[in-house]
Amino acid sequence: MLVSNPLAEMLDERIKSLDSTDPLRSFRSRFFLPKGVVYLDGNSLGALPVATAGRLQQVVNEEWGAGLIKSWNSHDWIGATQRVGNKIATLIGAKPGEVTVADSTSVNIFKLLLAAISNKPGRNIILTEAGNFPTDLYIAQGISGLFPNLNLLAVPGSKILEGINDQVAAILLTHVHYKTGYKHNLAEITRRAHQCGALIVWDLSHSVGAVDVNLAMAQVDLAVGCGYKYLNGGPGAPAFLFVAKHLQGQLRSPIAGWFGHAAPFEFSDEFLPAPNISRFLSGTPPILGLLALEVGVDLLMEAPLNAVSKKSQKLTALFIDLVESYCEEFDLEIVTPKNPELRGSHVSIKHEQGYAIVQALIARGIVGDFRSPDIMRFGFAPLYTSYEDVSRAVDILSDVMRTESWREFDTGIRDKVT
Amino acid sequence: MLVSNPLAEMLDERIKSLDSTDPLRSFRSRFFLPKGVVYLDGNSLGALPVATAGRLQQVVNEEWGAGLIKSWNSHDWIGATQRVGNKIATLIGAKPGEVTVADSTSVNIFKLLLAAISNKPGRNIILTEAGNFPTDLYIAQGISGLFPNLNLLAVPGSKILEGINDQVAAILLTHVHYKTGYKHNLAEITRRAHQCGALIVWDLSHSVGAVDVNLAMAQVDLAVGCGYKYLNGGPGAPAFLFVAKHLQGQLRSPIAGWFGHAAPFEFSDEFLPAPNISRFLSGTPPILGLLALEVGVDLLMEAPLNAVSKKSQKLTALFIDLVESYCEEFDLEIVTPKNPELRGSHVSIKHEQGYAIVQALIARGIVGDFRSPDIMRFGFAPLYTSYEDVSRAVDILSDVMRTESWREFDTGIRDKVT
Repeated sequence: MLVSNPLAEMLDERIKSLDSTDPLRSFRSRFFLPKGVVYLDGNSLGALPVATAGRLQQVVNEEWGAGLIKSWNSHDWIGATQRVGNKIATLIGAKPGEVTVADSTSVNIFKLLLAAISNKPGRNIILTEAGNFPTDLYIAQGISGLFPNLNLLAVPGSKILEGINDQVAAILLTHVHYKTGYKHNLAEITRRAHQCGALIVWDLSHSVGAVDVNLAMAQVDLAVGCGYKYLNGGPGAPAFLFVAKHLQGQLRSPIAGWFGHAAPFEFSDEFLPAPNISRFLSGTPPILGLLALEVGVDLLMEAPLNAVSKKSQKLTALFIDLVESYCEEFDLEIVTPKNPELRGSHVSIKHEQGYAIVQALIARGIVGDFRSPDIMRFGFAPLYTSYEDVSRAVDILSDVMRTESWREFDTGIRDKVT
Repeated sequence: MLVSNPLAEMLDERIKSLDSTDPLRSFRSRFFLPKGVVYLDGNSLGALPVATAGRLQQVVNEEWGAGLIKSWNSHDWIGATQRVGNKIATLIGAKPGEVTVADSTSVNIFKLLLAAISNKPGRNIILTEAGNFPTDLYIAQGISGLFPNLNLLAVPGSKILEGINDQVAAILLTHVHYKTGYKHNLAEITRRAHQCGALIVWDLSHSVGAVDVNLAMAQVDLAVGCGYKYLNGGPGAPAFLFVAKHLQGQLRSPIAGWFGHAAPFEFSDEFLPAPNISRFLSGTPPILGLLALEVGVDLLMEAPLNAVSKKSQKLTALFIDLVESYCEEFDLEIVTPKNPELRGSHVSIKHEQGYAIVQALIARGIVGDFRSPDIMRFGFAPLYTSYEDVSRAVDILSDVMRTESWREFDTGIRDKVT
């Protein structure tokens, strides 16, 4: 910390010890992290793995350029959705053949949510959380707009369990809340859904690659997730979707594209859904994005089991602890649960000048982000964030608050994306 | 040609003259074309532009790696869908703001076709062509399966005009047929659709970047197209969609993802569609694929107006002419129309041993493809295909037929994709 005193020295020792005993410490060098930057926005866009550029050059020059059309077979582009899907499956406690990579998170929510509803005729409610990530809400609104008898019910997170009843066809929830960092009890809510005969779609966008997810143990029906956050797949990376094996035969994707066909290259006139997870594919897979994503997924697969989620809890705990210790006098409200079992891998702080403070931090090399109207988010990607990063971030946050250097950023003009 | 005689020499001179006076001849060196290969499958996967690898390295290292999250603004990722959309608009006779890049062709068909149907309550027919590209058929089947009163009618291409009546809500047609190369009269069918009060969705996948398309002149309502064929965007490149300006306010995408919101970064709970073409976006745009696609689109934009479609007609005419002259004795049926006004940029030949013949050609460096059960396709991408390529392809085809060298490939085993 900036203040030099015995307490600060003790903290310094503590941080150094945490980093030197971190079982994931070797992963940091596998990422490209710009000098002078503490990147705490991997929950929005994950950092670049060092191996990605080389892999993409190979895909572009050797596979596309030299191999041309035959690379669909010779470089197994045709098998890439399933191969990368199976790798992601290992990260979320799913079985081989239960996950595939396709489209965007939004499109996957659309496919799975509508498939779930179609599987529950006679039930007329989609249940979700008010304040859920916008695209989840919007997609559900769009679906309910298509069918006059279908109603979307959005209740506060704390009322979800009691909101589930036998009129609910499907529930759409995000495991870790994008704004607050609050983590739902996946197993408990899933159990309740099943008691009432409803299907549940979990959005794992803020979980996968950071917190423990075991879909098999929780007997989850359906899930989707993002490829460009903790999976480090690059901007707009393709997303993934999970359908429990026993449901695959019953559910059909409303977007019945040719890659979801049992035999796409027979070019038959009639759609016959693939007998497996591939039935939830739609168009031609985005090979460049998919193979870039695979590099990020491969890195996570190298990490020892549970080490990622354990470090996530320790990083977020340290951040909360330091903010409470060193920023006590400022009007910062930590809105993320202090109980590590109830939070994901980012910590959100509320302040009415949140936008300006985030800008002031960015100017000092601490990259978090801002969510309207007053939330500052700090994400801790376990593979590449060090405990020293956490300490430095709080150091500079306290300095920005003490000196009120955020005032020069309080311009009223906001970037489109921060 | 292999046979050396005065006729062959005359042909040789003719080919040389065509190439040396080709206004597009300088474009060939802008693509990476493997040595010893005549690539006639750009209608399936376009060749790699030389500039793509460098651009992707820049995007990965500088924009994603060094710029991280701020590249959404500083490198204008946020504006990329609209920017590339506007460029594609110039290639298809659309106005700025009428085209955007999003998702796959399949997903875009789903969005526009369902939006069109929802705009025509009281009408209960989707009309399409039997034998249309499978994903078009499948998507339409999937949509009609969602709504019990909606019927999908697939009629032969020659019966489309008479099939349009006042019960038809929407028509889904592919401009250039993927198998036969037959090109529909876009303006005439669109006019008939409008006379009957129906909306029409044109799939331009086999047209854009190769044949003339003028959506404004034909007063087309809606269109989609593929990024990885003649646009040379790379395997699984994002697709595009077109919505005529006057329809944008009336139509809503059923997949109401956050990038289709009027203000995505307000993170409000209620979906409010963007007032413009962006309302047809769904999830986060696939930046790597989108910026790779832009390189291919930029190349096409450099080509003189109409030069591309003129060369397409000349290349296909030469191919047909040479096949008829030099392969007369073999049982090859050219199924693509000989009238240049009625065909796209690929020529299809029917032969019961089509699969084996295509394999034999590939073994000799002539890369076409095969479409079940008996169609060999040869695509002529005007930017990088030379007249010499055409001559060489027919030369080897006639040799393969004469020597029956295809027999060794008649194994009964077929690659998944060819």
